Amino acid sequence: MSRITGLRVRDIRFPTSREHDGSDAMNPAPDYSAAYVEIATDALDGHVGSAFVFTIGRGNEVQEAAIAALREHVVGADAEAVLADMGDTWRRLVHDSQLRWLGPEKGVMHMAIGAVVNALWDLRAKRAGQPLWALLADMSPAELVDLVDFRYLTDAITPADALGLLEAAVPLRAERKRRLEQRGYPAYTTTPGWLGYDDEKLARLCREAVDDGFAQIKLKVGGDVDEDVRRMGLARATVGPDIRIAVDANQRWDVDEAVTWIERLRPFDVAWVEEPTSPDDVLAHAEIARRIAPIPVATGEHMANRVIAKQLIQARAMSVLQIDATRVAGVNENLAILLLAAKHGVRVCPHAGGVGLCEAVQHLSMFDAVALTGDLDTRCIEYVDHLHEHFVTPVDVRDGRYWPPTAPGAGTEMLGGSLDTYSFPDGPVWSAADETIPDAVRVA
Amino acid sequence: MSRITGLRVRDIRFPTSREHDGSDAMNPAPDYSAAYVEIATDALDGHVGSAFVFTIGRGNEVQEAAIAALREHVVGADAEAVLADMGDTWRRLVHDSQLRWLGPEKGVMHMAIGAVVNALWDLRAKRAGQPLWALLADMSPAELVDLVDFRYLTDAITPADALGLLEAAVPLRAERKRRLEQRGYPAYTTTPGWLGYDDEKLARLCREAVDDGFAQIKLKVGGDVDEDVRRMGLARATVGPDIRIAVDANQRWDVDEAVTWIERLRPFDVAWVEEPTSPDDVLAHAEIARRIAPIPVATGEHMANRVIAKQLIQARAMSVLQIDATRVAGVNENLAILLLAAKHGVRVCPHAGGVGLCEAVQHLSMFDAVALTGDLDTRCIEYVDHLHEHFVTPVDVRDGRYWPPTAPGAGTEMLGGSLDTYSFPDGPVWSAADETIPDAVRVA
Repeated sequence: MSRITGLRVRDIRFPTSREHDGSDAMNPAPDYSAAYVEIATDALDGHVGSAFVFTIGRGNEVQEAAIAALREHVVGADAEAVLADMGDTWRRLVHDSQLRWLGPEKGVMHMAIGAVVNALWDLRAKRAGQPLWALLADMSPAELVDLVDFRYLTDAITPADALGLLEAAVPLRAERKRRLEQRGYPAYTTTPGWLGYDDEKLARLCREAVDDGFAQIKLKVGGDVDEDVRRMGLARATVGPDIRIAVDANQRWDVDEAVTWIERLRPFDVAWVEEPTSPDDVLAHAEIARRIAPIPVATGEHMANRVIAKQLIQARAMSVLQIDATRVAGVNENLAILLLAAKHGVRVCPHAGGVGLCEAVQHLSMFDAVALTGDLDTRCIEYVDHLHEHFVTPVDVRDGRYWPPTAPGAGTEMLGGSLDTYSFPDGPVWSAADETIPDAVRVA
Repeated sequence: MSRITGLRVRDIRFPTSREHDGSDAMNPAPDYSAAYVEIATDALDGHVGSAFVFTIGRGNEVQEAAIAALREHVVGADAEAVLADMGDTWRRLVHDSQLRWLGPEKGVMHMAIGAVVNALWDLRAKRAGQPLWALLADMSPAELVDLVDFRYLTDAITPADALGLLEAAVPLRAERKRRLEQRGYPAYTTTPGWLGYDDEKLARLCREAVDDGFAQIKLKVGGDVDEDVRRMGLARATVGPDIRIAVDANQRWDVDEAVTWIERLRPFDVAWVEEPTSPDDVLAHAEIARRIAPIPVATGEHMANRVIAKQLIQARAMSVLQIDATRVAGVNENLAILLLAAKHGVRVCPHAGGVGLCEAVQHLSMFDAVALTGDLDTRCIEYVDHLHEHFVTPVDVRDGRYWPPTAPGAGTEMLGGSLDTYSFPDGPVWSAADETIPDAVRVA
């Protein structure tokens, strides 16, 4: 047996705001960041479980403090027991009766639990010598169901429902795995569409996206409607009629404003409208979806937990559910959401980009493609070509597809050199460029 | 003019778990705590603005880190400008594009903004020499409307709607203020009903509540249904038929379970059922409300923000809205929620108790009683007789009523001696009783 001997948290920030990468209507100058956690044991294998919460800069130290608050839930514990019963591990973390008050089940504290849960999954997958998606897809339906906390979900899905969905897929797993390895998983790209880019860069990146084999791109909108119409027209003219173009408002609108704005974009053939309003607003999403039909509404990257996911599904508030690897409480909660979506026939097209979100979330979609819905036709994973070079096992995206990882783990381990270089505020990238450090952090 | 010169945060914890005070179905052993903030200026008046986020123990240090992350938004600023335009101040804090990612508008980061906003209101009220409720009730309708961010609200209330509601009350303010001062504001008490109390203590506290003039008490339920039926029977037998008894499940149930459980309690005449399920679950609350009618559903103490409040109202998910002084982003956001409730005819009966929640939230209800709905008949504020002795201006609750504070400020300033005694982990209450310190904190 082995014990968990340490939990280390680091504040890692990339100065992306210097290049306007990642700029959208609500986030004009993000510094893509990770509150990065490493969990070590005294096992001779030397494996470390790594994961993170993605943030966009200021406040990454708050996220770090929240992860540190979970230290005593894991350090000193029997590693085999913790990893063997990840359902129980999840419940112990989420139902800490005092920490729960800080959410409950939302925001900084919930995301911190997600990072710890994901680091434990990374450790388990490394020990098993499997990539996470394959580890999950090899588990029995009963084991998978036990990972999920069905509290607050039973009006939409029961453990028996979940078991049925997973059992139905068991005979298909081997063939689906071969198909995934042969065909890859569809990707779409947001690289061309950030608000801060000029027309020349927008058109060039649109052309490159098509040349790179992507069948869908996405533009950020919501700053200025006339400007959005112009940029959408430019993108459509550049890619032609056969490439899907989604738009993403990043929570910019109220209901009537959303409908009016989208009507202006409708002539350009909109693949979906993403985050038209507050991510908490199930009823507003439902109203917008009804009024802009048949244009699909997409949302989920800021969905706080499985209870919001459930309601979005129940209210028909969207038809594209965009799970995020680090917003909810980790693999277990995203499994709950995948099951809800499968039961109710909603397609899941994960949010990715940022720092390491592509590396992390692909495992969930690939698990689904093998052991749950098997859908490789209507689903796709977001792709942005930022910051992959900082990961030990960066994503393999070619010909517009994610190719299944083969390395053991959850894909969430960063390179030691990158961790040191981008440590905030002491890493050389920050200490050598003091003027770019956000004031809020420099003085605190 | 004066400048804001400092923002200090302190981790204050009371070892309430030693007495089972505050125990309920989800929170068996809370240590009532405050992430306490003080904002100082260089003005000669020496006034300090004080406020806090209420938590129940572990993780209070995370809340502290979140408040500290806001330091540079206020320190160094022109105090008059910040205080004179609290609408703008609120928007700058809530819409910090990087910090927003940590919610958005929910959880640890949002509550931290609430504490800073409330501390600024405390400072403004002290400077004005008025209790907060009176300060707010003396502001013009236009000034009040400008305090509210209507983003995401306009499908339920517009600035013009809000202005109309407030203007209609202007001619009534003087008479309502006299009435409030003469009659006080109705209170109800949760003191008898904690799950950890034995029958003798339950019955004794019920009798005392009636003797003290309370017309409503509340029992915690959700642990064991037979036990709840027995305790409810004992309480009803003790207080007689004329005292209202509400029950509070603290988010314990799924939909069907809630309905079944409440049917068992129905014969005892239930005043309302509080937090039957997840505080995020608008649709489940609506379904429960429909199925247990006419028993009212109450919720709101864990309502993350005004967007959830709006949906609870739109979906008729509850008929008693329980605002909390430190869960949302402070006075401004609670004003938005009071306006939403007023427009849609929902009664507001605030959550209180904890540490200082009574002291803080009474100002909001009293503002409403003077300058908004004027309702002193169907509304009441929760009261628990814990920890008031630590405040500079503790609540005045007599004859089952809150009596309007007369001291300048928001009621949120704690005594210096209490702050020192209960500082965590170095104050004497904690350092002298090391065995009671939660493990998670001792080692971190």
